[in-house]
Amino acid sequence: MKLNKNFELIKDNYLFHTIALKTEAFKKENPTADIIRLGIGDVVLPLTPHIVDAAKKAADEMASIETFKGYGPYRGYDFLLNAIVQYYQDNFKVDIEPDEVFTSCGAKNDIAAILELFDVSNTVLIPDPVYPAYVGANIMDGRKIIYMNGTKENNFLPLPSDKTKGDIIYLCSPNNPTGAVYTREQLKQWVDFAIKNDSVILFDSAYEYFITEDLPRSIYEIEGAKKCAIEVCSLSKTAGFTGVRFGHTIVPKELKDLNNRWFIRQSSKHNGVSIIVQRMAEAVFSKQGQKEAKQNVAIYQENANLMKKTLKDLGIYSTGGTNCPFVWFECGKDSWKFFDNLLNNAHIIGTPGAGFGQNGEGFFRFSSFNTPENTQKAMDRFKKFLKR
Amino acid sequence: MKLNKNFELIKDNYLFHTIALKTEAFKKENPTADIIRLGIGDVVLPLTPHIVDAAKKAADEMASIETFKGYGPYRGYDFLLNAIVQYYQDNFKVDIEPDEVFTSCGAKNDIAAILELFDVSNTVLIPDPVYPAYVGANIMDGRKIIYMNGTKENNFLPLPSDKTKGDIIYLCSPNNPTGAVYTREQLKQWVDFAIKNDSVILFDSAYEYFITEDLPRSIYEIEGAKKCAIEVCSLSKTAGFTGVRFGHTIVPKELKDLNNRWFIRQSSKHNGVSIIVQRMAEAVFSKQGQKEAKQNVAIYQENANLMKKTLKDLGIYSTGGTNCPFVWFECGKDSWKFFDNLLNNAHIIGTPGAGFGQNGEGFFRFSSFNTPENTQKAMDRFKKFLKR
Repeated sequence: MKLNKNFELIKDNYLFHTIALKTEAFKKENPTADIIRLGIGDVVLPLTPHIVDAAKKAADEMASIETFKGYGPYRGYDFLLNAIVQYYQDNFKVDIEPDEVFTSCGAKNDIAAILELFDVSNTVLIPDPVYPAYVGANIMDGRKIIYMNGTKENNFLPLPSDKTKGDIIYLCSPNNPTGAVYTREQLKQWVDFAIKNDSVILFDSAYEYFITEDLPRSIYEIEGAKKCAIEVCSLSKTAGFTGVRFGHTIVPKELKDLNNRWFIRQSSKHNGVSIIVQRMAEAVFSKQGQKEAKQNVAIYQENANLMKKTLKDLGIYSTGGTNCPFVWFECGKDSWKFFDNLLNNAHIIGTPGAGFGQNGEGFFRFSSFNTPENTQKAMDRFKKFLKR
Repeated sequence: MKLNKNFELIKDNYLFHTIALKTEAFKKENPTADIIRLGIGDVVLPLTPHIVDAAKKAADEMASIETFKGYGPYRGYDFLLNAIVQYYQDNFKVDIEPDEVFTSCGAKNDIAAILELFDVSNTVLIPDPVYPAYVGANIMDGRKIIYMNGTKENNFLPLPSDKTKGDIIYLCSPNNPTGAVYTREQLKQWVDFAIKNDSVILFDSAYEYFITEDLPRSIYEIEGAKKCAIEVCSLSKTAGFTGVRFGHTIVPKELKDLNNRWFIRQSSKHNGVSIIVQRMAEAVFSKQGQKEAKQNVAIYQENANLMKKTLKDLGIYSTGGTNCPFVWFECGKDSWKFFDNLLNNAHIIGTPGAGFGQNGEGFFRFSSFNTPENTQKAMDRFKKFLKR
């Protein structure tokens, strides 16, 4: 048989796997070091009581023949689709229909799998820097990638240009890794551009829950977006679900035949999300779940504020933090070298900007997903580290 | 943008979705009808106590900051990989290594996704009749499919032939829908054929737990299989996990660069299985979990025996049942018509053979996944139905 040759074009291991290996090696040599992780962007606060309770109730539901559930609907159970529809109405004033919602085992899965709906001849516009999973998935499929420059000059928010057209456009707002957030006016430019050029926008809104200012949290807040955009979202950061695994994808029925085709794809290659996880997600979208989620997110937001302040006090340029759990800052020429130095000397793990693309070089990402105590400790160490 | 044209080649909705729609319509017109489902092959017995307990413990684990787990290893946690390795040793006398095991959200996901490792120019050998998900996934990718005839004459067990070569060979044993199981000698023929022709076998062993006779339960029981075969398995039928969603895929390190590539694929497009589900799966592979699984499976096996006996008494040719939860029998020319008649007159849902391929026409599948009471009631109705 012939192997998929595109795999040979993938140069490195996945960014966060490389970081994990480097961390592992450091820990082996320094078993007593008190490492603080501001790296992969993984949450640390435990699941909140209402969610834990929902998991246990789901286990009981599965323990009785009367309430046991086998194969579920491919999109997800109505109780959950309706909860997500309600969430969109309450938070974004956006009307979507339950059969435009597809639940998933996480945004990462769907942001890659959704590509199967499109021909491999399509060109793909990807911001640089950005979450590396977009790039890997398209390389494996063999699509041509065009990068859009995100730089200090455009506040890491590339805007459409007739010089760089693409069939599939990835947007991530709030952006991972830079924390930059598009305004409504800027997103409108993208929506108009996509409609004009018959492109589709894959909108990654995984960090929408961290927006504190008057900025769009769903692309469907923008007029016309249902004609050109698919939105992928996640509970990973909203409710500490990085290990629980849950996301949702909105495929509007106005967008060509894509809703129908995504249903066919899902029913052929997927059997829905675990009922236990669906019940937990349902709890997140409930009133009590939202209250608890906001409490945890507030802790992370305080951490981000502390990091922003530390960088400001040190006179270092930074973006993000205000509407995003990530703080992005200038670190000098070589971000992998900075990573190694920071790990070796301050025992802090961050993420080198170079891992997010060419334009990420010279920058570094801190994640606010830690306890306030560790964040304070990390910032103290960071100040000392820079003074050396 | 250009859509993936291969979707236009998919003629119908996914088989089980069609059945669900037909059932829904019947229920609407006959709201009081006592329908017995011997159709989709979905389990009905609840999760056993040890598994329910594991789910609750996992919820508690996630409720405390000390034991909370975020992103997990891409393959799955060591506790689970080691449990699966042990299961292979104990049950099949097969040695696999933990890093050859990849946990999944179900066999259906991986049996489709694994295709991404192979070029689209490869030809695919698929038995007919067979589980329709294999076909759909390959049509979407645009691969050429060659069908291997499973007929009454070869006991629905097609064997390799130099006339029908293929790069990717799907084998499902015990077979869904026919219940036929390859012997070691027959599987050896397939392994030799694959090695000789540089083919890869995708071995679906989802029903291995139902084998009662001395027949191979893993393809790795066959010498040479690690050089040419990937095995996909599932807890759906073993432990009633159709709604919980868990499977595993073995990609041997001896098989070209595929283990490494599948790891790259999984780390780029997937973030592992829910920790709650992993803990539940761990419980299934434990001593107590195995004891409970066997008790439930024994109930389904008794149902299968009753169905076999009923068909025999009625003088109807059938296969399966003995080593598989499915019983496959001759139903007359038009299996969709038989489906409609059976639903309308006996209120029994089965699966028409035509849904599994051309050679399935004239046959019908009953699943043993029901309670003994319902199975008995269904067989009583079935006898009356045939006498009319």
